[in-house]
Amino acid sequence: MCRWLAYSGTPLLLDTILYKPAHSLIDQSLHSRLGVETTNGDGFGVGWYAQESIGTPALFTDVGPAWNNRNLRELADHVRSPLFFAHIRATTGTAVQQTNCHPFRHGRWMWMHNGAIADFHLLRRELTLLVSPELYADIEGTTDSEVMFYLALTFGLDRNPPEAVARMVGAVERVGRAHGVEFPLQMTIGVTDGERVWAFRYSSLGRSRSLFYSTRVDTLRKLHPDAAFLEEVSDDTRLVVSEPLGDLPGAWNEVPESTYGVIQDGMDELHPFVPEPV
Amino acid sequence: MCRWLAYSGTPLLLDTILYKPAHSLIDQSLHSRLGVETTNGDGFGVGWYAQESIGTPALFTDVGPAWNNRNLRELADHVRSPLFFAHIRATTGTAVQQTNCHPFRHGRWMWMHNGAIADFHLLRRELTLLVSPELYADIEGTTDSEVMFYLALTFGLDRNPPEAVARMVGAVERVGRAHGVEFPLQMTIGVTDGERVWAFRYSSLGRSRSLFYSTRVDTLRKLHPDAAFLEEVSDDTRLVVSEPLGDLPGAWNEVPESTYGVIQDGMDELHPFVPEPV
Amino acid sequence: MCRWLAYSGTPLLLDTILYKPAHSLIDQSLHSRLGVETTNGDGFGVGWYAQESIGTPALFTDVGPAWNNRNLRELADHVRSPLFFAHIRATTGTAVQQTNCHPFRHGRWMWMHNGAIADFHLLRRELTLLVSPELYADIEGTTDSEVMFYLALTFGLDRNPPEAVARMVGAVERVGRAHGVEFPLQMTIGVTDGERVWAFRYSSLGRSRSLFYSTRVDTLRKLHPDAAFLEEVSDDTRLVVSEPLGDLPGAWNEVPESTYGVIQDGMDELHPFVPEPV
Amino acid sequence: MCRWLAYSGTPLLLDTILYKPAHSLIDQSLHSRLGVETTNGDGFGVGWYAQESIGTPALFTDVGPAWNNRNLRELADHVRSPLFFAHIRATTGTAVQQTNCHPFRHGRWMWMHNGAIADFHLLRRELTLLVSPELYADIEGTTDSEVMFYLALTFGLDRNPPEAVARMVGAVERVGRAHGVEFPLQMTIGVTDGERVWAFRYSSLGRSRSLFYSTRVDTLRKLHPDAAFLEEVSDDTRLVVSEPLGDLPGAWNEVPESTYGVIQDGMDELHPFVPEPV
Repeated sequence: MCRWLAYSGTPLLLDTILYKPAHSLIDQSLHSRLGVETTNGDGFGVGWYAQESIGTPALFTDVGPAWNNRNLRELADHVRSPLFFAHIRATTGTAVQQTNCHPFRHGRWMWMHNGAIADFHLLRRELTLLVSPELYADIEGTTDSEVMFYLALTFGLDRNPPEAVARMVGAVERVGRAHGVEFPLQMTIGVTDGERVWAFRYSSLGRSRSLFYSTRVDTLRKLHPDAAFLEEVSDDTRLVVSEPLGDLPGAWNEVPESTYGVIQDGMDELHPFVPEPV
Repeated sequence: MCRWLAYSGTPLLLDTILYKPAHSLIDQSLHSRLGVETTNGDGFGVGWYAQESIGTPALFTDVGPAWNNRNLRELADHVRSPLFFAHIRATTGTAVQQTNCHPFRHGRWMWMHNGAIADFHLLRRELTLLVSPELYADIEGTTDSEVMFYLALTFGLDRNPPEAVARMVGAVERVGRAHGVEFPLQMTIGVTDGERVWAFRYSSLGRSRSLFYSTRVDTLRKLHPDAAFLEEVSDDTRLVVSEPLGDLPGAWNEVPESTYGVIQDGMDELHPFVPEPV
Repeated sequence: MCRWLAYSGTPLLLDTILYKPAHSLIDQSLHSRLGVETTNGDGFGVGWYAQESIGTPALFTDVGPAWNNRNLRELADHVRSPLFFAHIRATTGTAVQQTNCHPFRHGRWMWMHNGAIADFHLLRRELTLLVSPELYADIEGTTDSEVMFYLALTFGLDRNPPEAVARMVGAVERVGRAHGVEFPLQMTIGVTDGERVWAFRYSSLGRSRSLFYSTRVDTLRKLHPDAAFLEEVSDDTRLVVSEPLGDLPGAWNEVPESTYGVIQDGMDELHPFVPEPV
Repeated sequence: MCRWLAYSGTPLLLDTILYKPAHSLIDQSLHSRLGVETTNGDGFGVGWYAQESIGTPALFTDVGPAWNNRNLRELADHVRSPLFFAHIRATTGTAVQQTNCHPFRHGRWMWMHNGAIADFHLLRRELTLLVSPELYADIEGTTDSEVMFYLALTFGLDRNPPEAVARMVGAVERVGRAHGVEFPLQMTIGVTDGERVWAFRYSSLGRSRSLFYSTRVDTLRKLHPDAAFLEEVSDDTRLVVSEPLGDLPGAWNEVPESTYGVIQDGMDELHPFVPEPV
């Protein structure tokens, strides 16, 4: 389907994370190893918070592949950020257009998704009707991913992200099953308000798309005292990725099934994720 | 807003109508004379029925301006059709993307629109809910124009186009006024099933965007016995346009306010258009 | 690098050849089996001669991948042609832009290429200077492939294609070796004037990119009396492809190293290809 | 032809200059007042130096119009720079593609142009041959503007910009006249190395495209003590523009015919510009 990454920590040039690693996200756009599709060339997006306070993150999206995009190459070489999301898309059928590119944004929030709502064509109307009428008209694209975002916003994302996502999943599963869809949802989700990052891994079938988080930098430094890169980033620097970048042994840990993690203030936690009936 | 044209008659290279006239649609994309905006550069589309029977019309749309599009230039030089629509867009706010480009298509039907639903952001949810659930998930874009098309399809476009459009307008005006929008609709619409063409001119305020139809070719030949072009096309050849092409005196007639016309079998008729309460 | 196909024979909807076969060119854009790259997503092009006489072929090119292009899908469903070229690109470094998409056209001629001039950056100026001054300013893009086309035009492509291509190769090899490039050229080339098709397979190293031509249709019918598709096309229908489409046993024959073929009047011939010193 | 602006001074969000003024460059893309064309919708570019030291400027270019570009809107809201160029293009015939968008870049240098070489198709080969062979293969696009840049680089732009530009003009005029072109050049040019900005206004006919520079900020403050904007920028802040932004009386001064200006260290100077025979 898609691949994504979330970075939080020492402000870095985007290039350091997007292009430089051996199996970078840009490389994954051509040669994904763990994805359903090897090619993720149906548009991409990067969203970053500036170092200075601006409030909302900046978005850069395009409908072509990431691997040959000149502007992405330029931005990666010139933009530095302490918190950014990047996403490469392999469409499951909806149109290839900027409004369908992740990350999606609402105010200071960003959201990105890998996976799919099964039979979305069948469920789209009913799910969209559950979106708050105040939010409805802000939906710009036609993906399941954006509807999931707007459902989470409807269910209180800005108050309690894990609960809002649990209710969103509950709603999708209820509506799906009411229409005879046995396993309505597949998802890994990254979401942030610019300060904390939440990452979710879940699927109705219990066989979710892959998701990994990076090992604590202080631990990695002990494992790899010669890795110069690790000297440049702070202890609280973290990555969450669809599939590992690079080949540093010990650097990556799988997020377990039906689990979500939170990254904040140099700490991180994993919690079980359980859908909440709506 | 936008500019459009509908052609029906002797099969012609698209070039003959799209590029060759003195004030062609391509020229109008840069220098519209009668439009709200002089520039119509936010995407375009052409839909044509092939000479041989294929059933559905072909669509070619792009998000850039028509005036510099290499592929449109190529198609115009190589595609011949007896019935085609062309549309150049000036967005009133919705995204510039292929799924928002006119003409829209459903089965053998094509639809294009100039104008706007006032405060569409406010009315979008309620109007979209009036679309038949069977049709809802086929909506690909985010324009008011496409919602109008799906409402007309819901209200029986394939059985009785004038009535379906009258009911669509009735619905838009009822929903608009319920939300305090005094003049909810501005429209000229072209619609076809590949055999007949209907053209509508209407606005809630009674001051609609311009719309013109061409004079009968046999009449024009008497006026302009030296116009070689008129020898090449059959008597039943007709154009409907947002603003006149070329400068041939007597060639263009304004469609009156609150009126629709039908082109079929070499005949054409004008009828009053009255919204129908829904 | 790239993948291409050339079709000549019974007029067919492009769809029949571009999308329908099991391992179609569109499928090859995502999953090439024999190419240097598995993904060919850096633009594409189709060039076709209309059934009626127009003189020049029509070109449709775009900078995105072929696999998700809505307009290509539309054209394939609605355009019928007796002779067309299609090409999907994986850039070797030059910009992804329409003027670098194959096929290239000059008058009634079309040209497409898979391969590369080694160290083209180094040789570009000197090779470009060999292009006839009358033709020079018509070069629109920046690929090695287009320079090869203009060299062939300079060397008499419209009089004697095999000789012009042999001289082009001779020139590239001479200039390359003068700059210390041991194996200057890798190529398979398709070229046509709208009546005949020539296909070349050659490389300085003698290990050229793959190229196949289809078996005579009358022979295939005897092998596969149940293949309905074969009933629809004439005996003189032929395909030349970078890698086989579909899985019909006996349908494909490799063009030998240093060989060119000609398709004309239902006949085809293979000849040795030898560069000619210039 | 085109419109451009160069900004140098207090680091500002691009938005402040690109979108906010009453007659901003974005507005000029739709409604230029002084340009040859009212619409400048054939691509655009922005080049900016980051506040932190990175060496080369960042480029963002796109082939669509500036006025509806979502990414430009995002960058303008989130990128702050002390020195940036912006350019909107109306092609005089060459392809609409990113490699033809201004500003052009070489190392730390940026270059943008409004105007044209007359009969460039005729002169292209000979002018391109004057480019240094070491630089030749770096030419990525097909515009006269980029060839002018590479000629200036060939003639010592990084040592003495006014002299290099004078020699470039001398070369163009010599080659043009040798081919019977009476008035070979029309130009306003902006060029920078990231520290100083040079702006040139010249044409062979002596009737050049318009060019304006902004009045010293300290002078403007005395004229407009209530203009809050002027309090936010330093005395040495300067703009050079194809046509005035906004309507502040006294803010804009025309660059005279055959003149160039330099902006550096809060100072600026105007000098006569005289082509130098090459």
